[in-house]
Amino acid sequence: MEVKANGPRAPGPALPGPTNPMVTPLLTDLYQFTMAYAYWKATKHQERAVFDLYFRRNPFGGEYTIFAGLEECIRFIANFRFTEADISFIHDSLPGSCENGFFDYLRGLDCSEVEVYAIPEGTVVFPKVPLMRIEGPVAVVQLLETPLVNLVNYASLVATNAARHRFVAGKSKLLLEFGLRRAQGPDGGIGASKYCYMGGFDATSNVAAGKLFGIPLRGTHSHAFVSSFMSPDEIIDKSLQCADGSRSCEDFVSLVQTWLNKIQHPMQRSKTLRGTFGETNQSELAAFTSYALAFPKSFLALVDTYDVMRSGIPNFCAVALALNDLGYKAGGVRLDSGDLAYLSCEVRKFFSVIEKEFGVASFGKMNITASNDLNEETLDALNKQGHEVDTFGIGTYLVTCFAQPALGCVFKLVEINNQPRIKLSEDVSKVSIPCKKRCYRLYGREGYALLDIMTGENEQAPKAGERILCRHPFSESKRAYVVPQKVEELLKCYWPGSSGKAREELPPLKDIRERCIEQLEQMRPDHMRRLNPTPYKVSVSTKLYDFIHFLWLNEAPVGELQ
Amino acid sequence: MEVKANGPRAPGPALPGPTNPMVTPLLTDLYQFTMAYAYWKATKHQERAVFDLYFRRNPFGGEYTIFAGLEECIRFIANFRFTEADISFIHDSLPGSCENGFFDYLRGLDCSEVEVYAIPEGTVVFPKVPLMRIEGPVAVVQLLETPLVNLVNYASLVATNAARHRFVAGKSKLLLEFGLRRAQGPDGGIGASKYCYMGGFDATSNVAAGKLFGIPLRGTHSHAFVSSFMSPDEIIDKSLQCADGSRSCEDFVSLVQTWLNKIQHPMQRSKTLRGTFGETNQSELAAFTSYALAFPKSFLALVDTYDVMRSGIPNFCAVALALNDLGYKAGGVRLDSGDLAYLSCEVRKFFSVIEKEFGVASFGKMNITASNDLNEETLDALNKQGHEVDTFGIGTYLVTCFAQPALGCVFKLVEINNQPRIKLSEDVSKVSIPCKKRCYRLYGREGYALLDIMTGENEQAPKAGERILCRHPFSESKRAYVVPQKVEELLKCYWPGSSGKAREELPPLKDIRERCIEQLEQMRPDHMRRLNPTPYKVSVSTKLYDFIHFLWLNEAPVGELQ
Repeated sequence: MEVKANGPRAPGPALPGPTNPMVTPLLTDLYQFTMAYAYWKATKHQERAVFDLYFRRNPFGGEYTIFAGLEECIRFIANFRFTEADISFIHDSLPGSCENGFFDYLRGLDCSEVEVYAIPEGTVVFPKVPLMRIEGPVAVVQLLETPLVNLVNYASLVATNAARHRFVAGKSKLLLEFGLRRAQGPDGGIGASKYCYMGGFDATSNVAAGKLFGIPLRGTHSHAFVSSFMSPDEIIDKSLQCADGSRSCEDFVSLVQTWLNKIQHPMQRSKTLRGTFGETNQSELAAFTSYALAFPKSFLALVDTYDVMRSGIPNFCAVALALNDLGYKAGGVRLDSGDLAYLSCEVRKFFSVIEKEFGVASFGKMNITASNDLNEETLDALNKQGHEVDTFGIGTYLVTCFAQPALGCVFKLVEINNQPRIKLSEDVSKVSIPCKKRCYRLYGREGYALLDIMTGENEQAPKAGERILCRHPFSESKRAYVVPQKVEELLKCYWPGSSGKAREELPPLKDIRERCIEQLEQMRPDHMRRLNPTPYKVSVSTKLYDFIHFLWLNEAPVGELQ
Repeated sequence: MEVKANGPRAPGPALPGPTNPMVTPLLTDLYQFTMAYAYWKATKHQERAVFDLYFRRNPFGGEYTIFAGLEECIRFIANFRFTEADISFIHDSLPGSCENGFFDYLRGLDCSEVEVYAIPEGTVVFPKVPLMRIEGPVAVVQLLETPLVNLVNYASLVATNAARHRFVAGKSKLLLEFGLRRAQGPDGGIGASKYCYMGGFDATSNVAAGKLFGIPLRGTHSHAFVSSFMSPDEIIDKSLQCADGSRSCEDFVSLVQTWLNKIQHPMQRSKTLRGTFGETNQSELAAFTSYALAFPKSFLALVDTYDVMRSGIPNFCAVALALNDLGYKAGGVRLDSGDLAYLSCEVRKFFSVIEKEFGVASFGKMNITASNDLNEETLDALNKQGHEVDTFGIGTYLVTCFAQPALGCVFKLVEINNQPRIKLSEDVSKVSIPCKKRCYRLYGREGYALLDIMTGENEQAPKAGERILCRHPFSESKRAYVVPQKVEELLKCYWPGSSGKAREELPPLKDIRERCIEQLEQMRPDHMRRLNPTPYKVSVSTKLYDFIHFLWLNEAPVGELQ
């Protein structure tokens, strides 16, 4: 049996391996190896197979999905090689009767005979349309199944979740991903940060993700920071230089105290805020003052450790006004509990009174960040109630995809040795669409995408201005003539193996993010709405339709009723 | 300000780093660094603080949780060090005004001044009781918060999910974790395999997890393997040696065909199975035959690609009987769709008829594995309907913890500079229990755990045979006298830093798994049942109760109604 020598890799610039070094060819299901052995034993391992990677249903009750994870897949494929330690472990995991030639085969294996076509990462995608089409020797492509599905599943799910949160929050809000501590493991956390950014978030709290992917970082302080202080008396170094460096305030602690006394008055006078606070919490005041001394240019405060309106906000304003005296502008506050709609409005009023009473320009526009178990529903509820939040910090529900924690991508054989294959099921939604296919997105007059259509590999491509019959793949009566204004071929070559074809570049994360945001904006609004969105149509050509049904009848056993 | 020299590590044998090399001191929230800087700037960073890591509610509507993730936490702590690249990135991520002395401080930082007490991994645990108590300089302990919570959250959640699946499936069934492709990222997959094994699963399909943790591996083949074949004609090497090596069957393919013809008869005669099949699918027959030629000693077949009873099972039996002629025992079948209760019973009948008709000993007891979107509910439904499944392969719902994808561990400051601290909240369940505490599990006469009790650090420990008043931490009227038969202190020293205390060993995964299974068996059944389980009691000593409420009144602002 063939022993492939360790040849040179496919041409083109070398790609780095996957972000997580644990993504190796062993990160796969055991049955991929038992199958590989059975293929090899039957001298069938080099038969050319085509697999489609796709999903069957959009997540979160929506009608769209963001495709993500492609770059990691290609980096994995580009570096696909077994080490001797891997091979020795596979050897020990398979029955002792397996022949040594198989392990020699694994020793020489790489993806130089594999070709991967894919939809660009960050594209809005739909059920049944292949996100990736992987073609190559059947044994090696099977070995790729589990890692590719793993890398695409969660990435696409969480990017979609991020896009949905962005949709509800609106374009003008800042969205921060705060999910690391609640994510499903370290890599769940790092993946979440990357793909939430891709799906439209603005920043993350996750420092490692910031370093790995260049995502902007954001953060304030925690409740523990506040309660670690006792009183302002414990602050030793009380001096703070002015923003312009002209002079130094020797006792910033007293300056804060002075402001705290001053703001009692207008608050008591103000109709809305009358008597909202007496003595504020001293640990909190000490913590805020210390934080401002450390970060005079970017003072942010978590204001709900004791009581937002009676302690946190007056303490924050006193520190912010003291900073203002020295030429610094405070950054804002964070609310992490309670009725966020109500509290944010009350806080805004308080800030406006301060602006008016003390003539501090734009104090009323101070940033208000809200966190605390936010999700699509709570964002929607906040919108309906009316709120004054500028920035949302979202964690658990976002990164664990609480509303639906798995996407369910599959990887199906559609052709082997040029023979189309179909996977049947009593459940029609689980029947696979056979054949090596081409996929197109057809655009209408208003620039919106009308539908996606799949054709056989060698069919003529749809043309702009030419009428084409688009058919539902499984429902005879569902069909429509379409005259596209623009036709876009979806699958591009991201891994040519050694075929000599050009390889699409893997764009930087920032560009993918922009593409994603643009794509979402170009979708017809009725596909995007949260309540009863219109399904986007996914169709096949008449030729492919006929072929699917020919093959189906051919493979399905005829029932016998007795 | 103090610059700590790079000192030697804490004594004791060196521990390896976390399994995932991406778990570094940068895998934390940015605010941990801003807080560390503010502490440092206030010369407060070395103040001795105590934090508790705990959760507030059991997951999945149950009344127990399995604590998991400890070993990874300790390995992280033991290797906690910043690289120059880390420090340079932190430098660039913080405001430019931050002083250089802080980065020198980070340069020298490790966990030699930190002490970690924890409940042994694999223990059944309950809300509010600290799983880990982390004591050390406030700045460094804060930096540990995010990674420790990340490492414990998902690990404990998925271990608990596994234990719940085991509880429903029963002890006699084999449980296989098949979730890698649907897990939340690569590490979600690897963590799932490890912690599902810990929670009572028997094996995984994940080869990388098998290699990393020594977990038994299991796998068969996929639908793609079946549909990659066309017909038995394509099998080239048809010979198979007998199990005892005595002779070789030159045409195994014909032997299989002979058996396929033979079994038509009894099936047609048998009352229950009359006429269940005509011609079976030829791709499937070819795939099964090839798989058997590759793995004659462990032939397993996925039987639902075309039609279980009309094609998959007759094909499987023909191959299994041909193997039997040569002295091999087939391993069994896997069902991956349809009505698993009904199908497994039909398959069992079919096997029994084969055993009786052809006198093949124990053919009727052939292993039946079921997979396809199984979860606690479907397992329960299968039990109620009656089924003949021996082995369950469980994926998506298990590893993504579909029913509740996040646990919600928190990390709260309970003491600083020997001053107890409390975190208040309008929601009583979110109020933290202050003080550095000791925790005990009290056992009753029948050997069951009665309740957990927390006391102040210096209180006398409860003693076997001595009556003690156990109080609900927040509800005055809920209290009970208990005379324990046995008292177990829960928190043990897993990281002594440089304190010189003895360090608990980190046991191998297999031992943790056994501990976990034992622990679950020792729980009172009413805490474990799926429907309306009885909450397990978590209490505090009278002294601690009084102190909590003294502190609470002290910190809470007094309301003013107008």
